[in-house]
Amino acid sequence: MVTAAVIGATGYAGAELVRILTNHPKVTLTLLTSRQYSGRRFDEIYPAMAGHIDVTCQPYSAQLVCDQAEVVFLALPHQLPMSIVPELTQAGKYVIDLSADFRFSDVALYEKAYQAHTAKSILDRAIYGLAEVNTSAISSSRLIGNPGCYPTSILLPLIPLLKSGLILTESIVADAKSGVSGAGRTATLNTHICQVTESFKAYKVGGHRHTPEMEEQLSFAAKDDVKLTFVPHLLPMSRGMLSTIYARIKPGTTARDIRTCLESFYHGRQFVRVLSQAQLPDTLHVRGTNYCDIGFQIDPNRHTLILLSAIDNLGKGAAGQAVQNMNLMLGFEETDGLISIPYPI
Amino acid sequence: MVTAAVIGATGYAGAELVRILTNHPKVTLTLLTSRQYSGRRFDEIYPAMAGHIDVTCQPYSAQLVCDQAEVVFLALPHQLPMSIVPELTQAGKYVIDLSADFRFSDVALYEKAYQAHTAKSILDRAIYGLAEVNTSAISSSRLIGNPGCYPTSILLPLIPLLKSGLILTESIVADAKSGVSGAGRTATLNTHICQVTESFKAYKVGGHRHTPEMEEQLSFAAKDDVKLTFVPHLLPMSRGMLSTIYARIKPGTTARDIRTCLESFYHGRQFVRVLSQAQLPDTLHVRGTNYCDIGFQIDPNRHTLILLSAIDNLGKGAAGQAVQNMNLMLGFEETDGLISIPYPI
Amino acid sequence: MVTAAVIGATGYAGAELVRILTNHPKVTLTLLTSRQYSGRRFDEIYPAMAGHIDVTCQPYSAQLVCDQAEVVFLALPHQLPMSIVPELTQAGKYVIDLSADFRFSDVALYEKAYQAHTAKSILDRAIYGLAEVNTSAISSSRLIGNPGCYPTSILLPLIPLLKSGLILTESIVADAKSGVSGAGRTATLNTHICQVTESFKAYKVGGHRHTPEMEEQLSFAAKDDVKLTFVPHLLPMSRGMLSTIYARIKPGTTARDIRTCLESFYHGRQFVRVLSQAQLPDTLHVRGTNYCDIGFQIDPNRHTLILLSAIDNLGKGAAGQAVQNMNLMLGFEETDGLISIPYPI
Amino acid sequence: MVTAAVIGATGYAGAELVRILTNHPKVTLTLLTSRQYSGRRFDEIYPAMAGHIDVTCQPYSAQLVCDQAEVVFLALPHQLPMSIVPELTQAGKYVIDLSADFRFSDVALYEKAYQAHTAKSILDRAIYGLAEVNTSAISSSRLIGNPGCYPTSILLPLIPLLKSGLILTESIVADAKSGVSGAGRTATLNTHICQVTESFKAYKVGGHRHTPEMEEQLSFAAKDDVKLTFVPHLLPMSRGMLSTIYARIKPGTTARDIRTCLESFYHGRQFVRVLSQAQLPDTLHVRGTNYCDIGFQIDPNRHTLILLSAIDNLGKGAAGQAVQNMNLMLGFEETDGLISIPYPI
Repeated sequence: MVTAAVIGATGYAGAELVRILTNHPKVTLTLLTSRQYSGRRFDEIYPAMAGHIDVTCQPYSAQLVCDQAEVVFLALPHQLPMSIVPELTQAGKYVIDLSADFRFSDVALYEKAYQAHTAKSILDRAIYGLAEVNTSAISSSRLIGNPGCYPTSILLPLIPLLKSGLILTESIVADAKSGVSGAGRTATLNTHICQVTESFKAYKVGGHRHTPEMEEQLSFAAKDDVKLTFVPHLLPMSRGMLSTIYARIKPGTTARDIRTCLESFYHGRQFVRVLSQAQLPDTLHVRGTNYCDIGFQIDPNRHTLILLSAIDNLGKGAAGQAVQNMNLMLGFEETDGLISIPYPI
Repeated sequence: MVTAAVIGATGYAGAELVRILTNHPKVTLTLLTSRQYSGRRFDEIYPAMAGHIDVTCQPYSAQLVCDQAEVVFLALPHQLPMSIVPELTQAGKYVIDLSADFRFSDVALYEKAYQAHTAKSILDRAIYGLAEVNTSAISSSRLIGNPGCYPTSILLPLIPLLKSGLILTESIVADAKSGVSGAGRTATLNTHICQVTESFKAYKVGGHRHTPEMEEQLSFAAKDDVKLTFVPHLLPMSRGMLSTIYARIKPGTTARDIRTCLESFYHGRQFVRVLSQAQLPDTLHVRGTNYCDIGFQIDPNRHTLILLSAIDNLGKGAAGQAVQNMNLMLGFEETDGLISIPYPI
Repeated sequence: MVTAAVIGATGYAGAELVRILTNHPKVTLTLLTSRQYSGRRFDEIYPAMAGHIDVTCQPYSAQLVCDQAEVVFLALPHQLPMSIVPELTQAGKYVIDLSADFRFSDVALYEKAYQAHTAKSILDRAIYGLAEVNTSAISSSRLIGNPGCYPTSILLPLIPLLKSGLILTESIVADAKSGVSGAGRTATLNTHICQVTESFKAYKVGGHRHTPEMEEQLSFAAKDDVKLTFVPHLLPMSRGMLSTIYARIKPGTTARDIRTCLESFYHGRQFVRVLSQAQLPDTLHVRGTNYCDIGFQIDPNRHTLILLSAIDNLGKGAAGQAVQNMNLMLGFEETDGLISIPYPI
Repeated sequence: MVTAAVIGATGYAGAELVRILTNHPKVTLTLLTSRQYSGRRFDEIYPAMAGHIDVTCQPYSAQLVCDQAEVVFLALPHQLPMSIVPELTQAGKYVIDLSADFRFSDVALYEKAYQAHTAKSILDRAIYGLAEVNTSAISSSRLIGNPGCYPTSILLPLIPLLKSGLILTESIVADAKSGVSGAGRTATLNTHICQVTESFKAYKVGGHRHTPEMEEQLSFAAKDDVKLTFVPHLLPMSRGMLSTIYARIKPGTTARDIRTCLESFYHGRQFVRVLSQAQLPDTLHVRGTNYCDIGFQIDPNRHTLILLSAIDNLGKGAAGQAVQNMNLMLGFEETDGLISIPYPI
């Protein structure tokens, strides 16, 4: 059994990490930290979990973490992790950071979208934790920049097709829709049920910070500069994300080519389900899981490929993939702790 | 006061027509027909309206309609209206059909998407009832093919830009999302709350019958053949539709050009609100109304225009626009009966 | 036309007041105040209303109010109104306060449930604004304590029966359920959609401050001391309130007695709809309106009357009834500005 | 490993059984039957479960069941099971029936609420499967009448208190609220999201068939005739049930007495969580689980106990308890296959 800590355990991604890790057959959850709820039992904040976990939240302390945990998950707002992580990596910890701080190879992209980076010296050790794509690099890494939820849902269907050259690198559009939990647990007008019920809207049109994160990874895959038009929307629901992606296919590409490419790329990878032609992804089918369901259609008159992918933004889009990355880093089964059957409804 | 009948009054679009017409200052609602609820009071089916309307639903009869109504709204499934409408137009009635039967100029498009058309002889008298676009033709017409909800939300933002040549006619993508009421009142698995809660999904990808309807109108506007990639999605909510439209701008087109084009096209038209740059359309803001809210952003690095429009699929997308068309046909104020202030939430 | 001000216009009850008053045929809305949004246009806060109201919110000033408005609606948190109202009443204004500050006849009850009362000298001029019950007193009043939402939904069905002695005064239970808008616009964990989706729960069990408000009014009606067991619950929805009330019937009381009592008490009062035996109240049927729908059943083996009532907590439970009270005070038609037909869905 | 069949596997309770049993460490699911989906793969009907189960649904045949399964779960509409079960029990199968057919000791109660009973000869072998109450009888039984969802949520908090005589047996009121999945998967107007959104209503007031089921069990517990006033309501959500129960306490009963009674009765029983005084049950906290969370308050001025209980109507209210009963019957750990940690949200 490996010992693990969750830093920022009472946010939604943190709590989902706690849920998964409590169930994990090879992990003992030894430490939960929370600034807001320090000193209170975790199951007082999340009474659903009463009977499963009896840990009391503590304030963050590097010493405490180093003493108690071999693996450290950080579920903190951007900018905080880069001040914490260097000490942890120096102490030899396995670190999985769910913020953007360690997701970028090109620090200039990070600094343009976020702020000055204060831990540049360790950036090159960080691996972008898109588990099915960077599997072997993750397996030999000790520091993971866990992908954003939107990037996960958009990169997984696109990368195999860009790698194999079946689609054009220009004019890619990603129209993405997320449940409100992606906005976090902090209560704002945007999360108020009365503002959300019967409401659907786009936000940060053309300016979301996940765009450069995605463009960097897409360009790596295409070995070419890829520009992405990305529009996120807010769904009147709690958990779930669906991305509809439009790309122009190379002349001659057939639906069979697309299917073969996706199926062979994800062959043997349990968490990506390439759906049959008759099926379309539905957020309900992946709720609470680490799955990414992918479907597609070709609009023949327009030479356009329509890719659809569904994930749970807190699962494969955050905590699930983080645990999957831990499994890879530690040589566990990739699926350890992550095989929960979705509810029928 | 003009007399009006609603044929198919107990479906959702029919019931919304009843609500609006009951409030209309120049209309007396004299006849409601319903196959399913014939013989029952309308407010027994929709108890919300008790105290406002005391009409009993009757089975359809052309004689009855001709005797009792000068204006006839048809809220029936496709294919039924074309067997009914000829008799009504011959009797000199004003007819507004909410089905697809009288929406197409090119009957071959209709027949490919639906079925054989059995009232071709009167098709050329029908006007496509996109109220802000075809205003003068509607005003002198007696037969309206009321647009579909998706087409309304997608054509209103696109047509002015195509007419003025600010965007390219190729590679237009419309990613549209609708509340479940668009699927009608008939109970199916797709409308079951347990299948819809926490669910978001696309449907009829690449094959929705609103595509040819839109392409015909877009091509008229552009005076060129326009192809549209259209993907409809189902939102976990009741009423509301948002379309996100991606089009490539002509070199040199600026945001100011787009704004000027939209604002001048809709100048003086109360039901289209072109939002300021700081705002984005939200279905909640148009719920229960005849508004179409339009916003946009240019994604400069990608030469892409992102257009957003919000309507109520039962309002501007169906019953509201139908009444607006009646107002135009009869020379009433365009806004008669349609000015309801949306709820704050 | 009478001039009106809404103090606290950007909360949910305030905004609903703005919506109704904007539509009111005899009112000109001259002043909106807001602490939080002072200096901003109201339709920037509630973009739904763009095109209907172009007022800019101002900070509260007694002078401003006195200069600009004959009728003043206060939609503020408890405790604030009692520091403002004396000056307004002294200036001869018609005042309708939506807080608890002027709801109690017995100030000791208020002070026990809330805090010390600082405007006791004018308390005896205040009328409890349960419009259908205190009609004549309201009509000759200049200061109204507008009832709470729970009290409105519970008092309207109970008072006629207590007045006529058809039910026992002991062991009355009111199990009430409210949409989240009753909690106001301030964002908290309790209003966060992720905490509310698929959630239903009671709160403040046995200790809600609406209990003494109701007991005072019930005791007036019964001319006897009435105790009420009251449990409020939170519904996963935005607007609407349903109360299920259990009372023991006096021996010999029949369903016909109950019906006769309710129907005669509310005869001619348009906003209370006593439903037929075959129907049960549904919050959807009163959404956005000033209606209170009442239904009932007798459980014969248990000598228990089950009363059900549905209102919109922001409508008849707050802003709607406030405007109804204004109509009564000013001698307008009771229904002026309040007759909106509910949406079918 | 024991072999199991689910008869009626594609309804919501059936599908939840499939989910739980697929995860069960001591069960092999060998047979799923479905009338509607015979011949189709189960994961085609519930794509969420793709990758977890590859069984094809078959039509029901007693021979098939007897050949393939030692334990048989029936998730069928009332009246069907009593024509099937005799053959299965004769063949020595363990049978757990989720319908009402085997829930009643007094067949006259069943026949009054449902219809003539056609398997009376085996009725006396059936045990009422309220797992925490009838534990030992269940353990030595081969035929279980699995309790209804409402009864489970209402009996679990009441029975210990009636057994210990802390509350009076008269004037008990149960005000219960259920998610829509309790109405089953068949699509009707009552399950249509457009009728359910922003809707809350009671149904079958005073006449629900779960009333006699509960009264029989409550009377057993009290050793006296207990009458219950029961009103079910429909919540605008998918899964979850909360019951608010009002009972008069015996003079002298204290909150500590109530707590001691409940805590000692459920001592060591993992699926009933008696909450601390500071907490109240919330359906969100038990969603997808076999928990029943119980809380309470005493309203001292009114000598009234307010009991609150939350379950998942498909979990502890149906499939979860059915598997718990199987565990007891077969001598497994009571919690086998049932320990899933609820999602944080």
